[in-house]
Amino acid sequence: MDQQVTDAAQVNTARYEALMDVIRNRMTNRAFAPCEIPREHYELVLEAARHAPSGANAQPWHYIVVRDSAVKQAISQYFVQEQQNRIKLQMKFPTPNYSGVATAPGVIAIAVDYRFVRAFPVLNDGSELDRMYRRNAERILLQSVASSTMSAHLAAAALGYAVWWITAIGQDEMQRNIRPLLGIPEELDVVDVMCFGPPLKPSYKRWKKPLDQIVSWDRFNHQNLMTMKQIEDWVKTRRHKVMYRDETNVD
Amino acid sequence: MDQQVTDAAQVNTARYEALMDVIRNRMTNRAFAPCEIPREHYELVLEAARHAPSGANAQPWHYIVVRDSAVKQAISQYFVQEQQNRIKLQMKFPTPNYSGVATAPGVIAIAVDYRFVRAFPVLNDGSELDRMYRRNAERILLQSVASSTMSAHLAAAALGYAVWWITAIGQDEMQRNIRPLLGIPEELDVVDVMCFGPPLKPSYKRWKKPLDQIVSWDRFNHQNLMTMKQIEDWVKTRRHKVMYRDETNVD
Repeated sequence: MDQQVTDAAQVNTARYEALMDVIRNRMTNRAFAPCEIPREHYELVLEAARHAPSGANAQPWHYIVVRDSAVKQAISQYFVQEQQNRIKLQMKFPTPNYSGVATAPGVIAIAVDYRFVRAFPVLNDGSELDRMYRRNAERILLQSVASSTMSAHLAAAALGYAVWWITAIGQDEMQRNIRPLLGIPEELDVVDVMCFGPPLKPSYKRWKKPLDQIVSWDRFNHQNLMTMKQIEDWVKTRRHKVMYRDETNVD
Repeated sequence: MDQQVTDAAQVNTARYEALMDVIRNRMTNRAFAPCEIPREHYELVLEAARHAPSGANAQPWHYIVVRDSAVKQAISQYFVQEQQNRIKLQMKFPTPNYSGVATAPGVIAIAVDYRFVRAFPVLNDGSELDRMYRRNAERILLQSVASSTMSAHLAAAALGYAVWWITAIGQDEMQRNIRPLLGIPEELDVVDVMCFGPPLKPSYKRWKKPLDQIVSWDRFNHQNLMTMKQIEDWVKTRRHKVMYRDETNVD
C-alpha cells in the first residue's frame, strides 16, 4: 500500500465539508418569494449542469430557461390540471400544490434526447437482445440527465436558493402540452422542471434514512429489505409525512 | 420585488465556488493506484448519497460496499466477459477496459428497489393509463437513484479520489451474476457500480459542450437539435474521442 497516495486522499476534508454544506442545505420548497433571478445566476446554475458525467459522454440534455410569466402560468396550469386528474382517478398520491410553479422566480425545463440511446451499447436491430440492451441504455440516459440536473440543483442551493425538482411530467399528454409553449421539438422528451428562488416560508429538512438503512458491508444486509406489505404500509401511513413534514416531526 | 431577498441570494458566491471546485474536478479514471480506503471514507461518501432528493422522498436506494478482493475480481470478470460479448455482437461500442474494477480500491454496488414505483403517482390496476404513469414512475425512480449516486461521486471527488460510474450492468444476465456475489435479493435491481481511488495515471478532463449548446432562453434554440444523421455521424466519428481523450485533444 502506497502511504503517500493514502495521505493525499486524506487531506481534502475541508473540500468535503464545503460540499456537504451545500448537499445538506439543498432543500425543497414549493412556494417562493418574488425575486428577479439575474441572468448570471441561471448561467452559474447551468454551468454546474454542464460538467456532469453522462453515458458515452453524450451530454444528451437541454435546459430551457423560462422567464415569461405567462408561460410559467400556463405550465403551472397544466400541472394543476394533472393534480385534479389524479384526484379524479383516486390515485391517493399526496400531490403537491403545483400553483407555486406560476410564481417561481427561476423555472427551467429539462429535455432529453432519447435518440442518444444509440450512442450506448445497443444493437439497433430490433432483436430481443437489442431490447434488453435498449432498456439498459434508457436507464443510462436517464441517470445521465439526473446527474446533470442534480448538479444544477446543488448550484442553485449553493447560491442560497430553495429548489423544487418536478419529475411528474413524463406523461405523453403533459409533454404534448408543454412542448409548444417552449418551442421544444417532438424529438425531445421533457422529463423535468426545475424551480428555484428565495423561499416564501423557511425551507425545512426532510427525513432521511439513517446510514445503516442504506449501506451494507460486503454482503447485502437483509434487514434493509422491505416486504411488499411493508412498502404498502409505508405508502399508506408514512409517505405523506416524509414528503411534507420537517424531519423532526415525522413520527 | 423584494430587494433584501435578492441580496440574500447573491451573497453565497463563495459557497458556489467551493461547490464548483468539486464539480469541475470530478474526473473519471478507469485504473487506480493501490490504496486502502478507510471505512470512514466510505461513510463520508455515502453520507452525501443519503441526503439526495427522491420522488415521494422514498429513498429507494441501497449501497453495498465491496471490500473482498475476490469479489471485486469476480465482478470485474463479468464485465470483461460483457466486453467480449459486445465485440462478438459487433456492437462497435468503444467499451472501456473493465479489468480496472478488480483493483479499484473503492467499489460500491448500487441497487434500487423498483417496487417503490407504487409510492409514485400510479394506478396499480394494469390499465393502459397505469402503464403510462408507471413509465413515468420508473423515470422518477431512476432519476432519484442517480441524484444520490451523483452525490456520492462528488463526495469521493471532494476527498481527492478519481471516480468511475459504471451503468452498463442493467442487463438481466449481468444482474443474475452479480446478485449472488453480494447476497442481493431478487427484489432489487443492481443498476450501477461506483469505483473510486487514487488515479494510477493523472485523470484528465473530458470535453463538455459549451453552455450555449445546452441552454435555450425562453424558447428552445433549434440550432441545438441534432438530426438523426448528425447523431449517427457523432457516434461514428466523435464518440470515442469525447470518451477517451483529454478535452484539449478532441478535434
